[in-house]
Amino acid sequence: MKWSKSHLFTFKEAPSDAEIASHKLMVRAGLIKKIGPGLYTYGTLALKALRKFEQIIREELEKAECQELLMPMVHPRELWETTGRWDEMGDGLLKFQNRNEHWFCLGATHEEIITDYVRNDIKSYRHLPVTLFQIQTKYRDELRPRFGLMRCREFLMKDAYSFDRTEEEAHESYDRMFDAYKKIFDRVGLEYRHVLADSGNIGGNKNQEFQVLAEAGEDALMVCDTCDYAGNVEIAPALSSKENYQGEAKAKEEFATPGIRSIAALAEATGIEERFLVKTMFYKDEEGKQYAVLLRGNDEVNDIKLKKVIGLTNPPELLNEEEVVKLTTARPGSCGPMGLDIPVYADEALTNYSQFMVGANKDDFHIKGLNFGDGFKVEAFADLKLAKEGDHCPSCEKGKYKHVRGIEVGHCFYLGTKYSQKMNANFLDENGKSQIIEMGCYGIGVSRTIQAAIEQSHDADGIIWPRSLAPFDVHICLLDPKDEEAVRISNALQASLSEQKIECFVDDRKERPGVKFKDADLIGFPVRVVIGGKGIKNNEFELVNRKTKEKLTSTKEDLAKTVSGLLKSL
Amino acid sequence: MKWSKSHLFTFKEAPSDAEIASHKLMVRAGLIKKIGPGLYTYGTLALKALRKFEQIIREELEKAECQELLMPMVHPRELWETTGRWDEMGDGLLKFQNRNEHWFCLGATHEEIITDYVRNDIKSYRHLPVTLFQIQTKYRDELRPRFGLMRCREFLMKDAYSFDRTEEEAHESYDRMFDAYKKIFDRVGLEYRHVLADSGNIGGNKNQEFQVLAEAGEDALMVCDTCDYAGNVEIAPALSSKENYQGEAKAKEEFATPGIRSIAALAEATGIEERFLVKTMFYKDEEGKQYAVLLRGNDEVNDIKLKKVIGLTNPPELLNEEEVVKLTTARPGSCGPMGLDIPVYADEALTNYSQFMVGANKDDFHIKGLNFGDGFKVEAFADLKLAKEGDHCPSCEKGKYKHVRGIEVGHCFYLGTKYSQKMNANFLDENGKSQIIEMGCYGIGVSRTIQAAIEQSHDADGIIWPRSLAPFDVHICLLDPKDEEAVRISNALQASLSEQKIECFVDDRKERPGVKFKDADLIGFPVRVVIGGKGIKNNEFELVNRKTKEKLTSTKEDLAKTVSGLLKSL
Repeated sequence: MKWSKSHLFTFKEAPSDAEIASHKLMVRAGLIKKIGPGLYTYGTLALKALRKFEQIIREELEKAECQELLMPMVHPRELWETTGRWDEMGDGLLKFQNRNEHWFCLGATHEEIITDYVRNDIKSYRHLPVTLFQIQTKYRDELRPRFGLMRCREFLMKDAYSFDRTEEEAHESYDRMFDAYKKIFDRVGLEYRHVLADSGNIGGNKNQEFQVLAEAGEDALMVCDTCDYAGNVEIAPALSSKENYQGEAKAKEEFATPGIRSIAALAEATGIEERFLVKTMFYKDEEGKQYAVLLRGNDEVNDIKLKKVIGLTNPPELLNEEEVVKLTTARPGSCGPMGLDIPVYADEALTNYSQFMVGANKDDFHIKGLNFGDGFKVEAFADLKLAKEGDHCPSCEKGKYKHVRGIEVGHCFYLGTKYSQKMNANFLDENGKSQIIEMGCYGIGVSRTIQAAIEQSHDADGIIWPRSLAPFDVHICLLDPKDEEAVRISNALQASLSEQKIECFVDDRKERPGVKFKDADLIGFPVRVVIGGKGIKNNEFELVNRKTKEKLTSTKEDLAKTVSGLLKSL
Repeated sequence: MKWSKSHLFTFKEAPSDAEIASHKLMVRAGLIKKIGPGLYTYGTLALKALRKFEQIIREELEKAECQELLMPMVHPRELWETTGRWDEMGDGLLKFQNRNEHWFCLGATHEEIITDYVRNDIKSYRHLPVTLFQIQTKYRDELRPRFGLMRCREFLMKDAYSFDRTEEEAHESYDRMFDAYKKIFDRVGLEYRHVLADSGNIGGNKNQEFQVLAEAGEDALMVCDTCDYAGNVEIAPALSSKENYQGEAKAKEEFATPGIRSIAALAEATGIEERFLVKTMFYKDEEGKQYAVLLRGNDEVNDIKLKKVIGLTNPPELLNEEEVVKLTTARPGSCGPMGLDIPVYADEALTNYSQFMVGANKDDFHIKGLNFGDGFKVEAFADLKLAKEGDHCPSCEKGKYKHVRGIEVGHCFYLGTKYSQKMNANFLDENGKSQIIEMGCYGIGVSRTIQAAIEQSHDADGIIWPRSLAPFDVHICLLDPKDEEAVRISNALQASLSEQKIECFVDDRKERPGVKFKDADLIGFPVRVVIGGKGIKNNEFELVNRKTKEKLTSTKEDLAKTVSGLLKSL
C-alpha cells in the first residue's frame, strides 16, 4: 500500500474528547474517526488490524470445533420477551418501532436469537454438543460514550454460545472455550489476566473475564501477590479478620456532633479510629424499596455484592439527600439504622462490634454505646464491601491483594438453563426423556481489543503495534519518491518480503524526512526501513525497531533478509 | 467439516412464505433461517458462500485501487439532514430516538457518511482521486419483505464511493469500477447483463445495473435481439412509429357507451383498434397536485418516465376511484382530459392523432372527433409508456426488444456534485481555486447475489452451486461412518485435496445412503464422492457431477486426482 494512493491522514492534535492515550493515538493516526457520539468509522489501517484479529479468533475457535454463523443486528421484540429481558435490560437496549409499528431492538447480545435458532432443530441428544459463534456489530446505547472504542455504542464483537446435554458437558465446553481464549490472547501477545467476575444481566453462576492490563483500564482488579488468584473488584471477596471492638459507652447515649458530616471528622472529634466507627448507607431497588447498609467507617459498599445478598436483578441505587432526609429526618452525616422500617444489612467485619457509634437520625447528633438489635434488626451479616489492596487473598494462605487496572476484552459465562428453560430449548436424552439444554456464552470485544493493545503498547511518539495485529509489518520511508533507484530498491524489497507474507506500507509522499519519521512513529508498524539519500550511495540502509528505537544497517543485497530477521526477533 | 459435528439441518418442506425456488432451497438446505420479517440468520454454509464472494469482491476492488474501510450502521440525523434526504428517503429509512432523545437512522446507504468522512481531510487536488469501499450490513424497512434475501430488511452490501477532481476523471473512476464489476460477476460465473437504469433517489445522471438473468427476477428488462443494448423497463425508451390516425367523426360529439368500462370493451363496441383509442390516466404527486396522462389504448404508463417529464423527485401515484370521481365527476372508464384544470401530458405516439375518441367525463358517455387543444392543453408530448417486446431498439437499426427478467445485484452511479455540493466537500485545484469534488457510488448486493446464483442455478433436486461460491467443493458421502477403512480413505482424500485448497464436506451421519444422496443433491456442492459399500471391496469409487448428474468411477489410488480433474473441468 502506498500512502500517496491512500486516504490516510494523520493529525498533530488529538480531539478534545479523547481522554486516554489509545483514543488520542487512534484518532491522530487516522485509524478511527467519530461520526457521532459513540459511533466511529474504521479507516483502512484499523480495519486491517481488526481483520487480523478476527482471523486469529476464527482459527482458534475452529480448532475448538466451533462453527461460525451470522445473526441479524435487528431483533424482533417477541424473542426478547420470551426471557423477560425486553424489560430487564434497561435503557442500554435500544428499542424502536418500524414503519409497520412492530417493535424491534438493536442486538446488544444474542442469547435469545441463538437459542431460538437452535431450539427447533435440536431434538435429540445426538444433535449435541454444539458451539456456534459469530463476529458481528453490536449496539449498546451507552449514556455517555467515551474512551473511543472502549465504551462506544456500535462495536464489533465475537460472541459464541455452547449447547450441551449435561452440566458436566457444559463445563467441558466452557473449559474448551476458556482455553481457546487463552490461546487467542497469547497469540495476540497481550499482557492479560483472567479474573473471576460478576455476570451482570447475562446471568449464570460461573464466569471469568479476560482483562488486558493497562492503567487507563476501566476495571479495578485484585490480583494476589503470591498465587494466581485474580478477581474483578466487583466480586473479589474482602476477607476481614473480624476484629473485636467494644466501645467505651456502656449504654445508648445521644451526643451532639455539630458540623460533623464525615467519618474522618467524627474520628478526629472522638479520637476513635475510622475502622471502629460504623457508617450507615441507604439504597433503593428498582421498585423503590429501601435498604440500610452498615459497614466500617473506612470501607466502601460494593453494590454488586449487596445486590446478590438482597437477591435483586440489578444493583441498588444510593438514595439522594432528599430521600435520606425523608427517610431518617436527618441530613446525611447524622444518619443511622435506628427506628427505621427498612431492612438493614451489615458487613461481616462488624460481626464482633459492640457499644459502637452511629448517626442518631437527628441533625448534628450521634449515638454511642449501640449494639446490634438495639432499635433495629440486622437481616444478615455478609461481605458487602469493596476489596482493598492489602486484603487477604481468598485462595492462598500468605497472599495479599495487589490492585491493578484492566480493560475487559473477553468474558466466559456458564449460563446453565437460564435461557433454555424460559425458551423451551429441550432435547430428548438417551432414554427418550425431555431435558433442558445446558448453555454457556462467550464474548470477545473485537474492536475494543485493538484499542486495548494500543493502550498497553505505545510511547510518547505513537503506537507500537504488536506484530500479530499490525496493519503492516514494515514501514518503508521512501525519502525521494522521484528517485528511480530508490523506487527500484523499495519495489524489490516489497516483492521479496511479500513472498514471506510480510506486508509493506510505503510512505511515498512529497514530505520532508522528519515528517515521514514522525508519522512512522505515530502509526507504529514494527519495523521502519529508510530508503534514499546517502544510504543509496553508501549501500547502507537504516532499519528501526519501532519498539526499542534501536537502529540496524544493512546492504541492499541483505535488506530483505535483515528485515525479516528483525521481524522474527520481535 | 463433518456433518455429525455441525449444526446443519435440512428440511423436506419449504416454509409457506417462500414463493420462489431459491428462497425455498436456501431454507430447505439450512442456509438461512428467518427470525422475523425480512430478518435472517445465515448458517455456516451460507456464511462460507458469502465470505467467498466477499473475497472475490475485495481482490478485484483492490486491483482497481480501491481501499476498504468500515462505517457505522447507526447514523446521526444531522448528517442525513445536510442533503435533505432525512425527509426525502421516505419510510424505508428507519429512524429512531436513543435514550438521550437524539435522532438516528439505520444505514440504508452511506453517501452522507462517506462524504462527511472525506470532506474535512481532502483539502488539495493532490489528495484526489480516491475510491473507498466497505462491506457492511444495511437496513431498509421494506413494507412487505419477501423472496428471502432478495427483498429483506437487513442485508449485506458492498458499497463504494469515488471522489474525483473533474467530471472527466469521475467518469474514469466510474469506468474502472464498471470494469471491476464485470470481472467480479465473470469470476462468480453468473449469466448477467449490465443494463441502463433509473437512479431512484440516489441521484446522478448516468447509471447502470448489473442484472443476473432469472425468470423469478423482480426487474423487467428489455434487451435488443441484435445489438448489446439492454435497459431496465423503468427507463427503456419505447420508440413508436408515430402513426397517423384520423377518426371518422369530423366534429366533437358525445355518444352513449353504457356499461363500457375498459378499452377492450370500447374497441369491441366501436370497431376501432385499441391502439387508436386514447386512454386517460390520472396521477398525483407527493404534494397532492394532479396530472392527466394520455396514451394509446394498448400502452401502459411508465411512472418513472412520467416523474422525469413532470420534474418530480418520486414517481407520482395513480388516483383512486374516489379521487377520479371527485376530479372528473365520472367513474373510471368514462373519463377524459377535457375541461379539467390540471396539466395534461400525452405520449409521443399520439403526436399525429386527430379526431380521436376519449371519455366524456360523464358516466357512460364518450366523445369522438376530438383534437389536441379542443378543451384541454397538452403540456408536452413525450415518451411516457412502458416499452414492450418487439419495440424498436434505441441503439441499432434492425434490433427489436426482447423481454427478460433479472435480479439486480450491482449498480453503478455517476453522482456528479449532488452530495458534495450540499455537504461542502471541496478541494483546492492546481490554481488554488476551490472546486467541488465529483462523486460516484457503486453497490453490490452481497447476500442477494448468493441467492441470485441459486435462483439461476438449481434443479428440482436442489442447489447447483457455481464453484466460485460453493461453501465446499466436494461432498463426501461416507456410507458407514463406523467402517474404519472407509474413514481412512475419506481422511486421505481430504488431506490430499486440502493441499490443492479443495475443501471437503463429509456426511458422516448414521443415515441411509438414499437420505445422504438426497441431501447432497439439495445442498448442491459441485462434486459428490461416495465412499463405502461395495466400492471399497471392488476398489471402485463413484463420483457424481452435481450439475449434470453424470457419474465417474475411480480407484482409491486415483481418487484425489479424479476429483480435482472433475472440478477443473466444471
